[in-house]
Amino acid sequence: MSENSRLNLWMLNGKTRIVGVVGDPVEQVRSPLPLSEMMQRRAFNAIQLPFHVTPQDLRTFAEGVKRVGNLAGLVFTVPHKIAAMDLVDRLTPVAEAAGSVNAIRREADGLWLGDNFDGAGFVSGLQAEGHQIEGRSAFVAGVGGAGTAVCAALAQAGISSLRIYDIAEARTKGVKERLGRHFPSVNVEILRLPDPSAVDIAINATALGMGSEDPLPFGVEELSAHTVVAEVVMKPPVTRLLRLAEEAGHRVCKGENVMLHQLKPTAQFFEAASTF
Amino acid sequence: MSENSRLNLWMLNGKTRIVGVVGDPVEQVRSPLPLSEMMQRRAFNAIQLPFHVTPQDLRTFAEGVKRVGNLAGLVFTVPHKIAAMDLVDRLTPVAEAAGSVNAIRREADGLWLGDNFDGAGFVSGLQAEGHQIEGRSAFVAGVGGAGTAVCAALAQAGISSLRIYDIAEARTKGVKERLGRHFPSVNVEILRLPDPSAVDIAINATALGMGSEDPLPFGVEELSAHTVVAEVVMKPPVTRLLRLAEEAGHRVCKGENVMLHQLKPTAQFFEAASTF
Repeated sequence: MSENSRLNLWMLNGKTRIVGVVGDPVEQVRSPLPLSEMMQRRAFNAIQLPFHVTPQDLRTFAEGVKRVGNLAGLVFTVPHKIAAMDLVDRLTPVAEAAGSVNAIRREADGLWLGDNFDGAGFVSGLQAEGHQIEGRSAFVAGVGGAGTAVCAALAQAGISSLRIYDIAEARTKGVKERLGRHFPSVNVEILRLPDPSAVDIAINATALGMGSEDPLPFGVEELSAHTVVAEVVMKPPVTRLLRLAEEAGHRVCKGENVMLHQLKPTAQFFEAASTF
Repeated sequence: MSENSRLNLWMLNGKTRIVGVVGDPVEQVRSPLPLSEMMQRRAFNAIQLPFHVTPQDLRTFAEGVKRVGNLAGLVFTVPHKIAAMDLVDRLTPVAEAAGSVNAIRREADGLWLGDNFDGAGFVSGLQAEGHQIEGRSAFVAGVGGAGTAVCAALAQAGISSLRIYDIAEARTKGVKERLGRHFPSVNVEILRLPDPSAVDIAINATALGMGSEDPLPFGVEELSAHTVVAEVVMKPPVTRLLRLAEEAGHRVCKGENVMLHQLKPTAQFFEAASTF
Protein backbone atom coordinates (compact mmCIF):
# COMPACT_ATOMS: atom_id res chain seq x y z
CA MET A 1 0.00 0.00 0.00
CA SER A 2 1.57 3.27 -1.02
CA GLU A 3 1.31 6.35 1.19
CA ASN A 4 -0.34 8.25 -1.60
CA SER A 5 -3.24 6.43 -3.07
CA ARG A 6 -5.72 7.22 -5.69
CA LEU A 7 -9.35 7.46 -4.73
CA ASN A 8 -11.84 8.04 -7.44
CA LEU A 9 -14.78 9.07 -5.37
CA TRP A 10 -14.61 10.54 -1.92
CA MET A 11 -17.35 11.83 0.33
CA LEU A 12 -16.10 14.52 2.66
CA ASN A 13 -18.57 17.12 3.91
CA GLY A 14 -20.46 18.24 6.99
CA LYS A 15 -22.21 14.86 7.21
CA THR A 16 -19.04 12.78 7.22
CA ARG A 17 -18.71 10.53 10.25
CA ILE A 18 -15.47 10.07 12.13
CA VAL A 19 -13.83 6.74 12.86
CA GLY A 20 -10.65 7.11 14.89
CA VAL A 21 -7.78 4.72 15.25
CA VAL A 22 -6.14 5.40 18.59
CA GLY A 23 -2.57 4.33 19.36
CA ASP A 24 0.73 5.34 20.91
CA PRO A 25 2.56 5.57 18.59
CA VAL A 26 0.03 5.73 15.78
CA GLU A 27 2.16 6.55 12.73
CA GLN A 28 2.54 2.86 11.86
CA VAL A 29 -1.19 2.13 11.48
CA ARG A 30 -2.15 0.90 8.05
CA SER A 31 -5.93 0.93 8.21
CA PRO A 32 -6.98 4.58 7.59
CA LEU A 33 -6.86 4.43 3.80
CA PRO A 34 -8.21 0.89 3.16
CA LEU A 35 -10.89 1.15 5.86
CA SER A 36 -11.97 4.58 4.58
CA GLU A 37 -12.10 3.20 1.04
CA MET A 38 -14.12 0.21 2.23
CA MET A 39 -16.60 2.44 4.10
CA GLN A 40 -16.97 4.85 1.21
CA ARG A 41 -17.36 2.02 -1.32
CA ARG A 42 -20.25 0.83 0.84
CA ALA A 43 -21.76 4.35 0.51
CA PHE A 44 -21.06 4.95 4.19
CA ASN A 45 -19.91 8.57 4.47
CA ALA A 46 -17.11 8.07 6.98
CA ILE A 47 -13.35 8.47 7.16
CA GLN A 48 -10.86 6.87 9.50
CA LEU A 49 -8.13 9.14 10.88
CA PRO A 50 -5.31 8.33 13.31
CA PHE A 51 -5.47 9.75 16.86
CA HIS A 52 -2.20 9.78 18.74
CA VAL A 53 -3.07 9.44 22.44
CA THR A 54 -0.79 8.33 25.28
CA PRO A 55 -1.99 5.89 27.97
CA GLN A 56 -2.13 8.62 30.63
CA ASP A 57 -4.36 10.77 28.38
CA LEU A 58 -6.66 7.97 27.23
CA ARG A 59 -9.49 8.52 29.69
CA THR A 60 -9.67 12.31 29.27
CA PHE A 61 -9.46 11.89 25.51
CA ALA A 62 -12.28 9.35 25.50
CA GLU A 63 -14.53 11.48 27.70
CA GLY A 64 -14.08 14.39 25.32
CA VAL A 65 -14.37 12.57 22.04
CA LYS A 66 -17.52 10.72 23.11
CA ARG A 67 -19.23 14.14 23.07
CA VAL A 68 -18.83 14.28 19.29
CA GLY A 69 -22.23 13.50 17.79
CA ASN A 70 -20.91 12.29 14.44
CA LEU A 71 -18.22 10.06 15.93
CA ALA A 72 -19.05 6.61 14.54
CA GLY A 73 -16.53 5.07 16.89
CA LEU A 74 -12.92 4.29 17.63
CA VAL A 75 -10.50 1.52 16.82
CA PHE A 76 -7.83 0.88 19.46
CA THR A 77 -4.37 -0.40 18.78
CA VAL A 78 -1.27 -0.90 20.95
CA PRO A 79 -1.07 -0.12 23.88
CA HIS A 80 -4.74 0.67 24.49
CA LYS A 81 -6.62 -2.58 23.81
CA ILE A 82 -6.93 -3.68 27.42
CA ALA A 83 -7.48 -0.19 28.88
CA ALA A 84 -10.22 0.37 26.29
CA MET A 85 -12.36 -2.22 28.09
CA ASP A 86 -12.91 0.39 30.81
CA LEU A 87 -14.18 2.98 28.32
CA VAL A 88 -17.36 1.11 27.42
CA ASP A 89 -20.63 0.20 29.10
CA ARG A 90 -20.95 -3.26 27.60
CA LEU A 91 -18.82 -5.83 25.81
CA THR A 92 -19.55 -8.47 23.20
CA PRO A 93 -18.82 -12.09 24.24
CA VAL A 94 -15.83 -12.06 21.88
CA ALA A 95 -14.37 -8.98 23.57
CA GLU A 96 -15.05 -10.49 27.01
CA ALA A 97 -13.37 -13.74 26.03
CA ALA A 98 -10.48 -11.93 24.33
CA GLY A 99 -10.01 -9.75 27.40
CA SER A 100 -9.46 -6.76 25.14
CA VAL A 101 -11.30 -4.35 22.90
CA ASN A 102 -10.26 -3.04 19.54
CA ALA A 103 -13.41 -1.20 18.47
CA ILE A 104 -16.07 0.79 20.31
CA ARG A 105 -19.25 2.50 19.15
CA ARG A 106 -22.26 4.34 20.56
CA GLU A 107 -25.45 2.28 20.74
CA ALA A 108 -29.02 3.52 20.26
CA ASP A 109 -29.48 3.92 24.03
CA GLY A 110 -26.41 6.17 24.21
CA LEU A 111 -24.27 3.52 25.90
CA TRP A 112 -20.96 2.38 24.43
CA LEU A 113 -20.26 -1.12 23.14
CA GLY A 114 -16.81 -2.69 22.91
CA ASP A 115 -16.01 -5.45 20.43
CA ASN A 116 -12.86 -7.10 19.16
CA PHE A 117 -12.25 -7.76 15.46
CA ASP A 118 -8.64 -8.82 15.75
CA GLY A 119 -9.70 -12.45 15.49
CA ALA A 120 -12.67 -11.91 13.18
CA GLY A 121 -10.42 -11.02 10.26
CA PHE A 122 -8.37 -14.11 10.89
CA VAL A 123 -11.43 -16.36 10.96
CA SER A 124 -13.00 -14.70 7.89
CA GLY A 125 -9.72 -15.18 6.05
CA LEU A 126 -9.77 -18.90 6.78
CA GLN A 127 -13.43 -19.19 5.80
CA ALA A 128 -12.90 -17.20 2.60
CA GLU A 129 -10.32 -19.76 1.55
CA GLY A 130 -12.82 -22.55 2.10
CA HIS A 131 -11.74 -23.77 5.52
CA GLN A 132 -14.55 -24.75 7.87
CA ILE A 133 -14.32 -23.68 11.50
CA GLU A 134 -17.51 -25.09 12.96
CA GLY A 135 -16.98 -28.44 14.67
CA ARG A 136 -13.24 -28.45 13.95
CA SER A 137 -10.17 -28.44 16.18
CA ALA A 138 -7.31 -25.96 16.29
CA PHE A 139 -3.92 -25.54 17.89
CA VAL A 140 -2.96 -21.95 18.75
CA ALA A 141 0.66 -21.08 19.54
CA GLY A 142 0.78 -17.87 21.56
CA VAL A 143 -2.10 -16.39 23.55
CA GLY A 144 -0.99 -12.79 23.87
CA GLY A 145 -3.39 -10.13 22.57
CA ALA A 146 -3.56 -11.51 19.01
CA GLY A 147 -3.70 -15.18 20.02
CA THR A 148 -6.45 -14.61 22.58
CA ALA A 149 -8.50 -12.64 20.05
CA VAL A 150 -8.04 -15.47 17.54
CA CYS A 151 -9.20 -18.02 20.13
CA ALA A 152 -12.27 -15.92 20.95
CA ALA A 153 -13.19 -15.51 17.27
CA LEU A 154 -12.70 -19.23 16.61
CA ALA A 155 -14.96 -19.96 19.59
CA GLN A 156 -17.56 -17.52 18.27
CA ALA A 157 -17.37 -19.23 14.86
CA GLY A 158 -18.15 -22.60 16.45
CA ILE A 159 -14.81 -24.37 16.78
CA SER A 160 -15.25 -27.49 18.92
CA SER A 161 -11.83 -27.76 20.49
CA LEU A 162 -8.86 -25.48 21.08
CA ARG A 163 -5.40 -26.59 22.16
CA ILE A 164 -3.45 -23.56 23.37
CA TYR A 165 0.20 -23.06 24.15
CA ASP A 166 2.18 -20.08 25.43
CA ILE A 167 5.65 -19.85 26.95
CA ALA A 168 3.97 -17.81 29.70
CA GLU A 169 1.81 -20.60 31.08
CA ALA A 170 -0.15 -18.31 33.41
CA ARG A 171 -1.60 -16.60 30.37
CA THR A 172 -3.08 -19.84 29.04
CA LYS A 173 -5.00 -20.34 32.29
CA GLY A 174 -6.62 -16.91 32.02
CA VAL A 175 -7.58 -17.54 28.43
CA LYS A 176 -9.04 -20.96 29.21
CA GLU A 177 -11.04 -19.48 32.08
CA ARG A 178 -12.47 -16.62 29.96
CA LEU A 179 -13.26 -18.87 26.99
CA GLY A 180 -14.99 -21.33 29.33
CA ARG A 181 -17.12 -18.55 30.77
CA HIS A 182 -18.28 -17.06 27.46
CA PHE A 183 -18.12 -20.08 25.12
CA PRO A 184 -18.72 -23.05 27.43
CA SER A 185 -19.27 -25.50 24.56
CA VAL A 186 -15.67 -25.18 23.37
CA ASN A 187 -13.25 -27.73 24.81
CA VAL A 188 -10.06 -25.87 25.74
CA GLU A 189 -6.87 -27.77 26.52
CA ILE A 190 -3.66 -26.19 27.79
CA LEU A 191 -0.49 -27.70 26.35
CA ARG A 192 2.87 -27.71 28.11
CA LEU A 193 4.71 -27.89 24.80
CA PRO A 194 3.83 -26.61 21.32
CA ASP A 195 2.13 -29.66 19.85
CA PRO A 196 0.28 -29.02 16.59
CA SER A 197 -0.46 -32.69 15.91
CA ALA A 198 -3.94 -34.09 15.38
CA VAL A 199 -5.77 -30.80 14.77
CA ASP A 200 -7.56 -29.43 11.71
CA ILE A 201 -5.94 -25.99 11.91
CA ALA A 202 -2.51 -25.09 13.36
CA ILE A 203 -2.05 -21.40 14.02
CA ASN A 204 0.96 -19.26 14.78
CA ALA A 205 -0.24 -16.33 16.89
CA THR A 206 3.23 -15.49 18.24
CA ALA A 207 5.54 -12.88 16.71
CA LEU A 208 7.97 -15.62 15.67
CA GLY A 209 8.59 -15.41 11.94
CA MET A 210 8.93 -11.62 11.73
CA GLY A 211 12.69 -12.03 12.06
CA SER A 212 14.48 -14.17 9.48
CA GLU A 213 16.48 -15.90 12.24
CA ASP A 214 13.45 -16.66 14.42
CA PRO A 215 12.90 -20.26 15.52
CA LEU A 216 9.70 -21.90 14.30
CA PRO A 217 6.70 -21.50 16.65
CA PHE A 218 5.99 -25.23 16.21
CA GLY A 219 7.39 -28.15 14.24
CA VAL A 220 6.00 -28.73 10.77
CA GLU A 221 6.90 -32.43 10.79
CA GLU A 222 4.45 -33.01 13.66
CA LEU A 223 1.43 -31.86 11.67
CA SER A 224 -1.22 -34.28 10.46
CA ALA A 225 -1.40 -34.46 6.68
CA HIS A 226 -4.76 -32.63 6.42
CA THR A 227 -3.85 -29.76 8.80
CA VAL A 228 -4.18 -26.21 7.51
CA VAL A 229 -1.40 -23.90 8.72
CA ALA A 230 -2.33 -20.29 9.40
CA GLU A 231 -0.25 -17.32 10.43
CA VAL A 232 -0.85 -13.95 12.10
CA VAL A 233 2.56 -12.53 11.13
CA MET A 234 2.07 -10.19 8.14
CA LYS A 235 5.65 -9.29 7.35
CA PRO A 236 7.11 -11.19 5.60
CA PRO A 237 3.93 -12.33 3.78
CA VAL A 238 5.33 -15.85 3.61
CA THR A 239 7.06 -16.76 6.87
CA ARG A 240 9.46 -19.67 7.18
CA LEU A 241 6.64 -21.60 8.88
CA LEU A 242 4.32 -21.11 5.90
CA ARG A 243 7.06 -21.94 3.38
CA LEU A 244 8.01 -25.18 5.16
CA ALA A 245 4.34 -26.13 5.64
CA GLU A 246 3.63 -25.52 1.97
CA GLU A 247 6.66 -27.57 0.95
CA ALA A 248 5.34 -30.38 3.15
CA GLY A 249 2.06 -30.29 1.23
CA HIS A 250 -0.14 -28.38 3.70
CA ARG A 251 -2.64 -25.74 2.76
CA VAL A 252 -1.65 -22.40 4.31
CA CYS A 253 -3.34 -19.10 5.15
CA LYS A 254 -1.25 -15.91 5.18
CA GLY A 255 -1.19 -13.29 7.92
CA GLU A 256 -1.98 -10.49 5.51
CA ASN A 257 -5.42 -12.05 5.01
CA VAL A 258 -6.22 -10.93 8.54
CA MET A 259 -6.25 -7.22 7.84
CA LEU A 260 -7.91 -7.74 4.47
CA HIS A 261 -10.81 -9.61 6.01
CA GLN A 262 -11.02 -7.38 9.06
CA LEU A 263 -12.07 -4.36 6.98
CA LYS A 264 -15.58 -5.43 6.13
CA PRO A 265 -16.76 -6.44 9.64
CA THR A 266 -15.12 -3.32 11.02
CA ALA A 267 -16.91 -1.11 8.47
CA GLN A 268 -20.21 -2.84 9.27
CA PHE A 269 -19.66 -2.32 13.00
CA PHE A 270 -19.29 1.44 12.54
CA GLU A 271 -22.17 1.67 10.05
CA ALA A 272 -24.41 0.39 12.83
CA ALA A 273 -23.18 3.06 15.25
CA SER A 274 -25.68 5.48 16.70
CA THR A 275 -24.77 9.13 16.07
CA PHE A 276 -26.60 12.33 16.96
CA MET B 1 -19.37 22.21 -4.89
CA SER B 2 -20.79 18.72 -5.23
CA GLU B 3 -20.97 16.37 -2.27
CA ASN B 4 -18.90 13.81 -4.12
CA SER B 5 -15.75 15.25 -5.48
CA ARG B 6 -12.84 13.84 -7.30
CA LEU B 7 -9.46 13.99 -5.69
CA ASN B 8 -6.54 12.71 -7.65
CA LEU B 9 -4.08 12.36 -4.87
CA TRP B 10 -4.90 11.83 -1.26
CA MET B 11 -2.63 11.27 1.72
CA LEU B 12 -4.36 9.29 4.43
CA ASN B 13 -2.20 7.19 6.73
CA GLY B 14 -0.88 6.99 10.28
CA LYS B 15 0.88 10.33 9.89
CA THR B 16 -2.20 12.28 8.78
CA ARG B 17 -2.98 15.25 10.97
CA ILE B 18 -6.49 16.14 12.07
CA VAL B 19 -8.17 19.49 11.58
CA GLY B 20 -11.65 19.61 13.07
CA VAL B 21 -14.50 21.94 12.25
CA VAL B 22 -16.69 22.15 15.34
CA GLY B 23 -20.28 23.30 15.16
CA ASP B 24 -23.84 22.67 16.35
CA PRO B 25 -25.25 21.78 13.89
CA VAL B 26 -22.30 20.92 11.71
CA GLU B 27 -23.89 19.27 8.67
CA GLN B 28 -24.01 22.56 6.79
CA VAL B 29 -20.27 23.25 6.87
CA ARG B 30 -18.70 23.51 3.45
CA SER B 31 -15.00 23.62 4.25
CA PRO B 32 -13.96 19.98 4.83
CA LEU B 33 -13.43 19.10 1.18
CA PRO B 34 -11.91 22.35 -0.17
CA LEU B 35 -9.72 22.90 2.92
CA SER B 36 -8.52 19.28 2.83
CA GLU B 37 -7.76 19.65 -0.87
CA MET B 38 -5.89 22.89 -0.20
CA MET B 39 -3.83 21.31 2.59
CA GLN B 40 -3.03 18.21 0.57
CA ARG B 41 -2.14 20.23 -2.52
CA ARG B 42 0.36 22.05 -0.32
CA ALA B 43 1.82 18.62 0.59
CA PHE B 44 0.49 19.03 4.13
CA ASN B 45 -0.77 15.60 5.18
CA ALA B 46 -3.95 16.70 6.94
CA ILE B 47 -7.70 16.27 6.58
CA GLN B 48 -10.53 18.38 7.93
CA LEU B 49 -13.49 16.51 9.39
CA PRO B 50 -16.67 17.88 10.99
CA PHE B 51 -17.15 17.49 14.75
CA HIS B 52 -20.70 17.90 15.99
CA VAL B 53 -20.46 19.24 19.54
CA THR B 54 -23.17 21.03 21.56
CA PRO B 55 -22.38 24.13 23.65
CA GLN B 56 -22.75 22.24 26.94
CA ASP B 57 -20.24 19.62 25.76
CA LEU B 58 -17.70 22.04 24.30
CA ARG B 59 -15.34 22.25 27.27
CA THR B 60 -15.20 18.50 27.92
CA PHE B 61 -14.75 17.87 24.22
CA ALA B 62 -11.91 20.38 24.01
CA GLU B 63 -10.12 18.99 27.05
CA GLY B 64 -10.23 15.54 25.52
CA VAL B 65 -9.33 16.39 21.95
CA LYS B 66 -6.37 18.54 23.01
CA ARG B 67 -4.77 15.29 24.19
CA VAL B 68 -4.52 14.12 20.57
CA GLY B 69 -0.89 14.54 19.53
CA ASN B 70 -1.59 14.75 15.81
CA LEU B 71 -4.44 17.25 16.14
CA ALA B 72 -3.30 20.20 14.03
CA GLY B 73 -6.13 22.27 15.42
CA LEU B 74 -9.81 23.12 15.28
CA VAL B 75 -11.99 25.52 13.34
CA PHE B 76 -15.05 26.78 15.21
CA THR B 77 -18.32 27.73 13.64
CA VAL B 78 -21.72 28.75 15.02
CA PRO B 79 -22.46 28.80 17.98
CA HIS B 80 -18.95 28.28 19.40
CA LYS B 81 -16.91 31.26 18.19
CA ILE B 82 -17.17 33.32 21.36
CA ALA B 83 -16.98 30.37 23.79
CA ALA B 84 -13.85 29.19 21.95
CA MET B 85 -11.99 32.23 23.31
CA ASP B 86 -11.97 30.47 26.69
CA LEU B 87 -10.37 27.33 25.26
CA VAL B 88 -7.03 28.95 24.44
CA ASP B 89 -4.08 30.36 26.35
CA ARG B 90 -3.40 33.30 24.04
CA LEU B 91 -5.15 35.23 21.27
CA THR B 92 -3.92 37.06 18.19
CA PRO B 93 -4.72 40.81 18.06
CA VAL B 94 -7.26 40.07 15.33
CA ALA B 95 -9.05 37.53 17.52
CA GLU B 96 -8.94 39.96 20.48
CA ALA B 97 -10.34 42.75 18.37
CA ALA B 98 -12.94 40.50 16.75
CA GLY B 99 -13.99 39.24 20.17
CA SER B 100 -14.23 35.73 18.78
CA VAL B 101 -12.09 32.83 17.64
CA ASN B 102 -12.58 30.63 14.63
CA ALA B 103 -9.33 28.64 14.66
CA ILE B 104 -7.08 27.29 17.40
CA ARG B 105 -3.78 25.41 17.30
CA ARG B 106 -1.12 24.09 19.66
CA GLU B 107 2.05 26.18 19.82
CA ALA B 108 5.63 24.95 20.30
CA ASP B 109 5.42 25.60 24.06
CA GLY B 110 2.31 23.41 24.33
CA LEU B 111 -0.02 26.37 24.83
CA TRP B 112 -3.00 26.99 22.56
CA LEU B 113 -3.39 29.99 20.28
CA GLY B 114 -6.70 31.37 19.04
CA ASP B 115 -7.00 33.32 15.79
CA ASN B 116 -9.85 34.49 13.60
CA PHE B 117 -9.78 34.11 9.81
CA ASP B 118 -13.37 35.14 9.17
CA GLY B 119 -12.19 38.58 8.12
CA ALA B 120 -8.88 37.51 6.58
CA GLY B 121 -10.62 35.81 3.65
CA PHE B 122 -12.66 38.92 3.06
CA VAL B 123 -9.60 41.16 3.05
CA SER B 124 -7.57 38.76 0.87
CA GLY B 125 -10.48 38.64 -1.57
CA LEU B 126 -10.46 42.43 -1.88
CA GLN B 127 -6.68 42.51 -2.27
CA ALA B 128 -6.71 39.71 -4.85
CA GLU B 129 -9.01 41.85 -6.98
CA GLY B 130 -6.54 44.72 -6.79
CA HIS B 131 -8.17 46.81 -4.08
CA GLN B 132 -5.76 48.44 -1.65
CA ILE B 133 -6.65 48.40 2.06
CA GLU B 134 -3.72 50.22 3.60
CA GLY B 135 -4.44 53.87 4.24
CA ARG B 136 -8.00 53.62 2.90
CA SER B 137 -11.40 54.16 4.49
CA ALA B 138 -14.30 51.75 4.78
CA PHE B 139 -17.93 51.72 5.83
CA VAL B 140 -19.12 48.49 7.45
CA ALA B 141 -22.84 47.79 7.82
CA GLY B 142 -23.40 45.23 10.57
CA VAL B 143 -20.96 44.41 13.34
CA GLY B 144 -22.20 41.01 14.45
CA GLY B 145 -19.69 38.16 14.36
CA ALA B 146 -18.88 38.51 10.65
CA GLY B 147 -18.80 42.30 10.62
CA THR B 148 -16.56 42.53 13.67
CA ALA B 149 -14.15 39.99 12.17
CA VAL B 150 -14.11 42.00 8.94
CA CYS B 151 -13.33 45.20 10.89
CA ALA B 152 -10.51 43.47 12.78
CA ALA B 153 -8.99 42.09 9.57
CA LEU B 154 -9.26 45.48 7.85
CA ALA B 155 -7.49 47.05 10.84
CA GLN B 156 -4.79 44.39 10.70
CA ALA B 157 -4.35 45.10 6.99
CA GLY B 158 -3.76 48.78 7.70
CA ILE B 159 -7.05 50.50 6.96
CA SER B 160 -6.88 54.09 8.23
CA SER B 161 -10.53 54.73 9.05
CA LEU B 162 -13.61 52.63 9.71
CA ARG B 163 -17.16 53.92 9.86
CA ILE B 164 -19.37 51.31 11.47
CA TYR B 165 -23.13 50.95 11.72
CA ASP B 166 -25.38 48.39 13.41
CA ILE B 167 -29.07 48.51 14.30
CA ALA B 168 -27.94 47.34 17.75
CA GLU B 169 -25.98 50.43 18.67
CA ALA B 170 -24.51 48.90 21.84
CA ARG B 171 -22.61 46.46 19.66
CA THR B 172 -20.83 49.23 17.79
CA LYS B 173 -19.48 50.66 21.06
CA GLY B 174 -17.92 47.33 22.04
CA VAL B 175 -16.36 46.96 18.60
CA LYS B 176 -14.96 50.49 18.68
CA GLU B 177 -13.52 49.89 22.14
CA ARG B 178 -11.82 46.61 21.15
CA LEU B 179 -10.48 47.96 17.87
CA GLY B 180 -9.11 51.00 19.71
CA ARG B 181 -7.33 48.78 22.20
CA HIS B 182 -5.66 46.47 19.67
CA PHE B 183 -5.33 48.72 16.61
CA PRO B 184 -5.03 52.24 18.08
CA SER B 185 -3.94 53.80 14.79
CA VAL B 186 -7.31 53.10 13.14
CA ASN B 187 -9.85 55.90 13.37
CA VAL B 188 -13.22 54.29 14.22
CA GLU B 189 -16.42 56.26 13.91
CA ILE B 190 -19.85 55.01 15.00
CA LEU B 191 -22.70 56.03 12.68
CA ARG B 192 -26.32 56.47 13.76
CA LEU B 193 -27.54 55.69 10.25
CA PRO B 194 -26.12 53.54 7.44
CA ASP B 195 -24.12 56.11 5.53
CA PRO B 196 -21.74 54.65 2.94
CA SER B 197 -20.80 58.00 1.42
CA ALA B 198 -17.22 59.25 1.11
CA VAL B 199 -15.41 55.96 1.76
CA ASP B 200 -13.16 53.85 -0.46
CA ILE B 201 -14.89 50.58 0.39
CA ALA B 202 -18.53 50.03 1.43
CA ILE B 203 -19.22 46.67 2.97
CA ASN B 204 -22.38 44.76 3.76
CA ALA B 205 -21.66 42.53 6.74
CA THR B 206 -25.32 42.02 7.65
CA ALA B 207 -27.41 39.05 6.50
CA LEU B 208 -29.55 41.37 4.35
CA GLY B 209 -29.52 40.12 0.77
CA MET B 210 -29.94 36.42 1.53
CA GLY B 211 -33.69 36.81 1.08
CA SER B 212 -34.95 38.13 -2.22
CA GLU B 213 -37.36 40.51 -0.43
CA ASP B 214 -34.70 41.91 1.96
CA PRO B 215 -34.24 45.67 2.11
CA LEU B 216 -30.84 47.00 1.06
CA PRO B 217 -28.29 47.30 3.91
CA PHE B 218 -27.42 50.79 2.61
CA GLY B 219 -28.38 53.02 -0.28
CA VAL B 220 -26.39 52.65 -3.50
CA GLU B 221 -27.17 56.21 -4.62
CA GLU B 222 -25.25 57.62 -1.64
CA LEU B 223 -21.96 56.01 -2.72
CA SER B 224 -19.07 58.05 -4.08
CA ALA B 225 -18.22 57.21 -7.67
CA HIS B 226 -14.94 55.43 -6.83
CA THR B 227 -16.32 53.33 -3.96
CA VAL B 228 -15.89 49.55 -4.15
CA VAL B 229 -18.90 47.62 -2.85
CA ALA B 230 -18.18 44.34 -1.07
CA GLU B 231 -20.49 41.73 0.36
CA VAL B 232 -20.29 38.95 2.97
CA VAL B 233 -23.53 37.26 1.82
CA MET B 234 -22.60 34.21 -0.29
CA LYS B 235 -26.03 33.06 -1.41
CA PRO B 236 -27.10 34.38 -3.83
CA PRO B 237 -23.64 35.04 -5.33
CA VAL B 238 -24.90 38.37 -6.69
CA THR B 239 -27.12 40.08 -4.12
CA ARG B 240 -29.45 42.92 -5.03
CA LEU B 241 -26.91 45.30 -3.46
CA LEU B 242 -24.14 44.06 -5.75
CA ARG B 243 -26.37 44.12 -8.84
CA LEU B 244 -27.51 47.69 -8.19
CA ALA B 245 -23.95 48.82 -7.38
CA GLU B 246 -22.63 47.23 -10.56
CA GLU B 247 -25.41 48.87 -12.60
CA ALA B 248 -24.38 52.20 -11.06
CA GLY B 249 -20.82 51.65 -12.28
CA HIS B 250 -19.13 50.53 -9.05
CA ARG B 251 -16.57 47.79 -8.80
CA VAL B 252 -17.92 44.98 -6.58
CA CYS B 253 -16.51 42.07 -4.62
CA LYS B 254 -18.65 38.96 -4.07
CA GLY B 255 -19.26 37.21 -0.77
CA GLU B 256 -18.14 33.86 -2.16
CA ASN B 257 -14.62 35.27 -2.43
CA VAL B 258 -14.47 35.17 1.34
CA MET B 259 -14.44 31.42 1.69
CA LEU B 260 -12.19 31.02 -1.33
CA HIS B 261 -9.55 33.31 0.11
CA GLN B 262 -9.92 31.98 3.65
CA LEU B 263 -8.63 28.54 2.68
CA LYS B 264 -4.97 29.40 2.19
CA PRO B 265 -4.39 31.37 5.43
CA THR B 266 -6.33 28.69 7.32
CA ALA B 267 -4.18 25.93 5.82
CA GLN B 268 -1.03 27.87 6.66
CA PHE B 269 -2.21 28.38 10.23
CA PHE B 270 -2.59 24.63 10.77
CA GLU B 271 0.65 23.78 8.97
CA ALA B 272 2.44 25.84 11.63
CA ALA B 273 0.74 23.91 14.45
CA SER B 274 2.90 22.01 16.88
CA THR B 275 2.01 18.33 17.14
CA PHE B 276 3.58 15.51 19.17
